[in-house]
Amino acid sequence: MSGSQAIAWLEANEQQCLNRLMEWLRIPSISTDPAYKAEVARAAAWAAEHLVASGLAVEIIQTGDPVGTGHPIVLASTPGDAAYKGPHILFYGHYDVQPVDPVNLWHNPPFEPVMETSGGHERIVARGACDDKGQVSTFLEALRAWKEATGKVAGGVKLTVLLEGEEESGSVNLDRFVSQHRDRLGKCDVCVISDTGMLARGKPAITYGVRGLSYTEVILHGPDQDLHSGLWGGRAPNPNNELVKVLAQLWDSDRRVTIHGFYDRVRPVEQAEREAWKNLGVDVAASLRSIGLPPQADIGEKGYTAIEREWARPTAEINGIVGGYTGKGAKTVIPSWASAKVSFRLVADQDPREITASFFKWLDERTPPGCRWEKIDHSGGNPATCATDSKPLVAARRAIERAAGIAPAMIKSGGSIPVAGLLKGELGIETIFMGFGLEDDRVHSPNEKFEIDCWRLGARSHAMLLDELTAVK
Amino acid sequence: MSGSQAIAWLEANEQQCLNRLMEWLRIPSISTDPAYKAEVARAAAWAAEHLVASGLAVEIIQTGDPVGTGHPIVLASTPGDAAYKGPHILFYGHYDVQPVDPVNLWHNPPFEPVMETSGGHERIVARGACDDKGQVSTFLEALRAWKEATGKVAGGVKLTVLLEGEEESGSVNLDRFVSQHRDRLGKCDVCVISDTGMLARGKPAITYGVRGLSYTEVILHGPDQDLHSGLWGGRAPNPNNELVKVLAQLWDSDRRVTIHGFYDRVRPVEQAEREAWKNLGVDVAASLRSIGLPPQADIGEKGYTAIEREWARPTAEINGIVGGYTGKGAKTVIPSWASAKVSFRLVADQDPREITASFFKWLDERTPPGCRWEKIDHSGGNPATCATDSKPLVAARRAIERAAGIAPAMIKSGGSIPVAGLLKGELGIETIFMGFGLEDDRVHSPNEKFEIDCWRLGARSHAMLLDELTAVK
Repeated sequence: MSGSQAIAWLEANEQQCLNRLMEWLRIPSISTDPAYKAEVARAAAWAAEHLVASGLAVEIIQTGDPVGTGHPIVLASTPGDAAYKGPHILFYGHYDVQPVDPVNLWHNPPFEPVMETSGGHERIVARGACDDKGQVSTFLEALRAWKEATGKVAGGVKLTVLLEGEEESGSVNLDRFVSQHRDRLGKCDVCVISDTGMLARGKPAITYGVRGLSYTEVILHGPDQDLHSGLWGGRAPNPNNELVKVLAQLWDSDRRVTIHGFYDRVRPVEQAEREAWKNLGVDVAASLRSIGLPPQADIGEKGYTAIEREWARPTAEINGIVGGYTGKGAKTVIPSWASAKVSFRLVADQDPREITASFFKWLDERTPPGCRWEKIDHSGGNPATCATDSKPLVAARRAIERAAGIAPAMIKSGGSIPVAGLLKGELGIETIFMGFGLEDDRVHSPNEKFEIDCWRLGARSHAMLLDELTAVK
Repeated sequence: MSGSQAIAWLEANEQQCLNRLMEWLRIPSISTDPAYKAEVARAAAWAAEHLVASGLAVEIIQTGDPVGTGHPIVLASTPGDAAYKGPHILFYGHYDVQPVDPVNLWHNPPFEPVMETSGGHERIVARGACDDKGQVSTFLEALRAWKEATGKVAGGVKLTVLLEGEEESGSVNLDRFVSQHRDRLGKCDVCVISDTGMLARGKPAITYGVRGLSYTEVILHGPDQDLHSGLWGGRAPNPNNELVKVLAQLWDSDRRVTIHGFYDRVRPVEQAEREAWKNLGVDVAASLRSIGLPPQADIGEKGYTAIEREWARPTAEINGIVGGYTGKGAKTVIPSWASAKVSFRLVADQDPREITASFFKWLDERTPPGCRWEKIDHSGGNPATCATDSKPLVAARRAIERAAGIAPAMIKSGGSIPVAGLLKGELGIETIFMGFGLEDDRVHSPNEKFEIDCWRLGARSHAMLLDELTAVK
């Protein structure tokens, strides 16, 4: 009965909830760029205030070594009703966002959110509209709904909320934070995260696995100065030429990664999973069309479908590369160095530290004559997969079914949410990914958006989840 | 007798000559960057004024289509004495300079020239100090010396001077200019250029061949938007990955260029030339050391020495490459496009247009699935080699020997001076390269310099060349 009160409140107060979200989106909390440090702190304070209003006890905790050099973590909690017998829930989200470049491709300034209708779908467009402020907002407003409609904090569920400000920059201080707060966080039984997508519009999903990540930057140093390509071309190593030749060896002709031992800890995709995923009816050609590509762009590791490649196979990606003259016109230069940001998406039991070490060793084995490597580990995260029959997961499935009127699909994601691997490894906690994004939300890209239907379903589902959890014995 | 009067004047007025050069160097005439257009024009006007003071008739001619969109050409001439029987000399130089990035590596601002002493050698440090304002200045001051010391314009030699403002950006308007002024320029018999180097300090040289160039920019377009590398990694082409894989195929394991027909018009290095170059005693290890590289960095096309590779073999160089995120920290992006500036140094009878077309075809044969190429031809120039027994060249050898007290070495250069190929092709004119740079002058790099000893030898040699030419029958 209380669940429907919360739902009714959400219906009656939707515009107010969305206005609050847009207020949050106006704060440019780009964590990877030190210039935005104060804005990231402001976004944390905003979330803390919101949680206080819903009746939780809230702390803003500085991170980093020395303390304060990182972005703060918002940690909130409520003890739950005396009668509550269900699991202690840890809700994790992040309030930082990706950089906005190339900024000229945005139709509106990325931190001036607009509500608009496109193709019959109402949506909010802004950096962070979906990833992850918009998704976190669905949970925050479910808490607000319970408090306002019933007076019960978090519907009586025993709850800890952890909102991070460094997810988009490698969560560099989260390991230490979790380790330092092990006493408190270790009491949680299961983690809930809203940072994933649905199968399609009106097709909700629970994600039971995400890929891991190791992210590196490598710089190949050659001559100690830029050279004239006429006087030196053909006489000495050109770091651009040499870097390209080395990186091209990352893949064989079947597009498999060539690093020694790379696939050792990858588990084969099981036949049952292959069948289940096939039956999801994903339209690969339509996905490619949505990013401007023809059907023949469906390329990747040989022997696997697009979904299998995304959900169950690792990859190597050059996220950035730069060397020499990149301005307008011609400059006949041989540069002193060339660099690339190279990352790996990991699955199953692959270990990011092990993969990074193997990659660096692989580079050392290919050092061009007279050159040297500078290698930077930008950190990463473990892959994570949770059991489909755990009680909290069953509660989440029921909650979404009640909110949406349709059972959620059970899917995985190719993205990485390092915290899931960290919580499993450090605290033994499983994670349920209850996300409401769509494939075309343009997360990490210009004109990122979140559709109102998605937001609404998210808020309702979280309200129902609190209801379902009180029924768990 | 008049030659020694000019030399005496140069000795007496050296500081004044160098001050004039530094004045010219203060004008940031970067031709490739449209932001500097007015400065390029100012550098042209400066040179014109200087030539007028030496008694020549001078015009500043606008270039480009429409006219005025290019950088101006300074064209000056003097008819010579009635008694003059020698060749009509065309002196070519350029007053534009390379960009200055990375600007943070300059010890002084690039357009605030300083005179300093390093390792016992006095020098001027500034962008353009050597390439090519400093070298052109040696010729301009020789003209000034003749006029001031003897009253004779250009020592009585029949002379045309052509100073270009687009050499560092591909000389894009020079072809049309030469073609439009064929009547006037076609009367010249031989071209003299000071834009090359000596063998070493105190070892003057005449360069009898330069490499050609074709310079291209290629952009590989993939998805129509940047993608999240988690959601798309392994599912669709990553332009960074694919560009690197294609460009790495430019070289085989012997570091030979793999483009079909690339070597068809390359002439073998003759045994006599190999011997002569070997006897020059070039210290390859010392050259590499001067750019911070160990002896094992002596790499390039298999089967050739460093000098042979620079002077007589073509190469392929990636002058710039960029794609995806290149800022600080980590961004998990698959970019929409990746691009590279790729150039080729050419020798013997290789044709830049043919090579560019072959490269573009080679790319088309390797288009990654679902992607497309955008290809830009940034122009280039023919390779050029001149006969060692022509009368003007003999005059030049004598002039340098008189000025330096030592016979110049006969060498080639790996750099490209497209005008030489153009003049030969369009007007049938041979070119004599009388240059006074040193290998460590850092042309095109931060802290470019020109040593005063080199400048002095250049000015004296040009003064003597005018003298020698009057003796040619």
